[in-house]
Amino acid sequence: MERDAFLEVLAGCLGERGLLREPESMVRYVSDWAGIRLGMPLAVARPASTAEVVATVRLCREHGVPMAPQGGHSGLVAGALPAAEGNELVISLERMNRVRSVDAINFTMSVDAGCILDSVKQAAAEHECDFPLALGAQGSCQIGGNVATNAGGLNVLRYGMMRQLVLGLEVVLPDGRLWSAMTELHKDNRGYALRQLFLGSEGTLGIVTGAVLKLTPRAVQSRTALLGLDSLEAVIELYGLARRDCSDLLSAFELIPRRCIELAMEATSTLSDPMQQHYPWYVLLEVSASGSLDLGGMLEHLLERGMARNLILDGALAASESQSQQLWQFRESMLEGQRRRGEHLRTDISVPISAIPAFVDAASRRIRESSPDCEIIAYGHVGDGNLHFNVLPPPTMPEAEKYDHLHALEVQLFSLLDDFGGSISAEHGIGRTKQPAYLARLSPVERELVVGIKALFDPDDLMNPGRILPRRQRE
Amino acid sequence: MERDAFLEVLAGCLGERGLLREPESMVRYVSDWAGIRLGMPLAVARPASTAEVVATVRLCREHGVPMAPQGGHSGLVAGALPAAEGNELVISLERMNRVRSVDAINFTMSVDAGCILDSVKQAAAEHECDFPLALGAQGSCQIGGNVATNAGGLNVLRYGMMRQLVLGLEVVLPDGRLWSAMTELHKDNRGYALRQLFLGSEGTLGIVTGAVLKLTPRAVQSRTALLGLDSLEAVIELYGLARRDCSDLLSAFELIPRRCIELAMEATSTLSDPMQQHYPWYVLLEVSASGSLDLGGMLEHLLERGMARNLILDGALAASESQSQQLWQFRESMLEGQRRRGEHLRTDISVPISAIPAFVDAASRRIRESSPDCEIIAYGHVGDGNLHFNVLPPPTMPEAEKYDHLHALEVQLFSLLDDFGGSISAEHGIGRTKQPAYLARLSPVERELVVGIKALFDPDDLMNPGRILPRRQRE
Repeated sequence: MERDAFLEVLAGCLGERGLLREPESMVRYVSDWAGIRLGMPLAVARPASTAEVVATVRLCREHGVPMAPQGGHSGLVAGALPAAEGNELVISLERMNRVRSVDAINFTMSVDAGCILDSVKQAAAEHECDFPLALGAQGSCQIGGNVATNAGGLNVLRYGMMRQLVLGLEVVLPDGRLWSAMTELHKDNRGYALRQLFLGSEGTLGIVTGAVLKLTPRAVQSRTALLGLDSLEAVIELYGLARRDCSDLLSAFELIPRRCIELAMEATSTLSDPMQQHYPWYVLLEVSASGSLDLGGMLEHLLERGMARNLILDGALAASESQSQQLWQFRESMLEGQRRRGEHLRTDISVPISAIPAFVDAASRRIRESSPDCEIIAYGHVGDGNLHFNVLPPPTMPEAEKYDHLHALEVQLFSLLDDFGGSISAEHGIGRTKQPAYLARLSPVERELVVGIKALFDPDDLMNPGRILPRRQRE
Repeated sequence: MERDAFLEVLAGCLGERGLLREPESMVRYVSDWAGIRLGMPLAVARPASTAEVVATVRLCREHGVPMAPQGGHSGLVAGALPAAEGNELVISLERMNRVRSVDAINFTMSVDAGCILDSVKQAAAEHECDFPLALGAQGSCQIGGNVATNAGGLNVLRYGMMRQLVLGLEVVLPDGRLWSAMTELHKDNRGYALRQLFLGSEGTLGIVTGAVLKLTPRAVQSRTALLGLDSLEAVIELYGLARRDCSDLLSAFELIPRRCIELAMEATSTLSDPMQQHYPWYVLLEVSASGSLDLGGMLEHLLERGMARNLILDGALAASESQSQQLWQFRESMLEGQRRRGEHLRTDISVPISAIPAFVDAASRRIRESSPDCEIIAYGHVGDGNLHFNVLPPPTMPEAEKYDHLHALEVQLFSLLDDFGGSISAEHGIGRTKQPAYLARLSPVERELVVGIKALFDPDDLMNPGRILPRRQRE
């Protein structure tokens, strides 16, 4: 049998540990954080080196086997899941998890793609540096996945997305050739930005096997505050004030609605209401610095100004590291609180920062009109204009109705987003889940270019086919 | 005649002011800052709107006329100059110089591509914002050129190159279709990074007609210091210290060798030696902030630490804006001093920051061995690993010998650079001048991808042909 012959040769290349073929050993490769599950893979290849990735991809190409490159299974758009047909080879980079080198003077680190983000952050810390990408999934997500999805997270406001944090890349192309550009240069203006093209291509143009990351000086101090405000207009005005008063030291400015504070307290019983009164909106902000600047004074000055302008109504300023962690726990526990509510509409959208109040207002009205029983929770990264505008269906809604109902709300939200010049995917990418909404908004000219790039890199449509773009029709 | 017919139709599209055909009116479009001049253009189109650019490109495509898009003529690699054959239509964006809109709350500005960088910076300032790109050519260079060349400059260390400062783009493709993605979103993770592909493509994939720029809060204070050091090792160690002590507020860290201080004083008679003694190396550094942090105290702390470690031997700390300008005048006047020395080897290279001392040492030895009479001046942006390692031939060298001699030195330098994993073009791009050195270092796999991208966007090879890549061979 063709399939068996292929797997035999592959097993010969990768060794016993390098290839999983039994269903029970493959279970953990078939679902992601969104809980989606499509089908089983043909097998799971676990190459231990770039050379083994090259060999694997060459074999796949020879045998016409579609490939699903995989990182830490923390995606939310089904981009890394093997197809329902069961014909895809999962290629997991998990065994390639070596920090290749650190150059603290150059503020760079060279790593295998399978390194887990937390271990990269740890390795940076050992050299008095930070790798500033910060995500909820950092304990399990891998650098290769961060590159492929152009990961964002909590500190984008200050440090940018993954696109801004990668200096060099090593990629195995769909035909099995290696594109090696592991440059440690901070500045290099030669030719087209191929590196940038791979960033965010979600594994459809090649398999990232290594990356050179840009580090920052290690933050030695930080200050955190949770503030109560009474309108989104006040939140946006405070953001402008904070950007100015904190110079470039503002590393997070998170919007949290009252309902999320409640969800957090539901999920974590040790949390108590952070302020005496309730406020419709909260801002969790953080400043940090690698030097000995007076961050406390800086933050106090901002809070005074914010209070004098009636923007900040109350606030909790963390006086210690543990108090700071407690404030951040609201941000983390509210996600758990949401999860406990079962199936709900999760979005990951962006609008211009200045449009946040008007968008949230219009979207909330629209949702309430069509679904008065739903609960809206809109939180997110204000400095990125990135909102997770989520909708919880009423507990009384029958499970069988939820999907269609929530999907209809999503369609309405996305349509409103078009009026605001917004994006249907600020950070999670397209994968499979968002493909219909993405394609519906793609201009013919852009579609032609994107399809052309995919065909140039992957003429046989074997590399993560059907993600971002539909599978190519075969003659 | 075919040519005349084409120009008649074009004149009908663009109007009297929109098309220059007389040689005397075209003179200023045929040379750049490097003083290179190839040939005259077929004519100079000066469209006044995106629609006129579209019409111009369509006509060129219909008639098979190659196009040379042009910004502010401040390039250094002959990328924007019309070809020697006289067959290219220059398309100058200079009449498209409108700031379309500013959104200070969103920290964005939408502009025509022909806006001069200084006028963009001015418009940002009027909204209490900065557009942080800073170049010697900012009084004449245009945003479209900054996008096309992924411009760098003095503050890359803190704010990144143009790639990092552009949120949206509008590009007329080589077939005359408009790719409009003037998004004002700080975060948008939909599909492939086409925007990034245009950034740095040097006008070979399309003509940039508009851009959405990312602004920063306006700096309200800055501090400048000029420091004397005795080795490059000390410079690099001080850089690490400065990055840490100044948190993210370090906006420039310029390396200046003693010889450049002398060249500056030769060029500007009002400049006097900045310190009592001479030092082999100087560092010009600047910190700035949009808030009221104690920058003076921060800088003093850094200087104390640098002196205690024997890194800084002496220093001049500007006590006022005018003193700061005087320190920066060394940086500017040294360029004029160089120019006065006539033809010399100018490079724009990068290496990892940690490799700067070893590279400068090895390169200096190599140049001295083969040309003991030449003078070496190596200055640049330390935080970017970007050096302008330049060589001044002895005044006694006959003019006729200079070009070949300097070119031979460049070949040696570039070869050494390969050993250091460096780049032959850190910020100036490839254009025509650096094409041979670029192609010689391009791997077969990368060449295939780059050629494929060019063919995908510009199948007729009419858009800035022969820049970055050689002209396509026509059957």
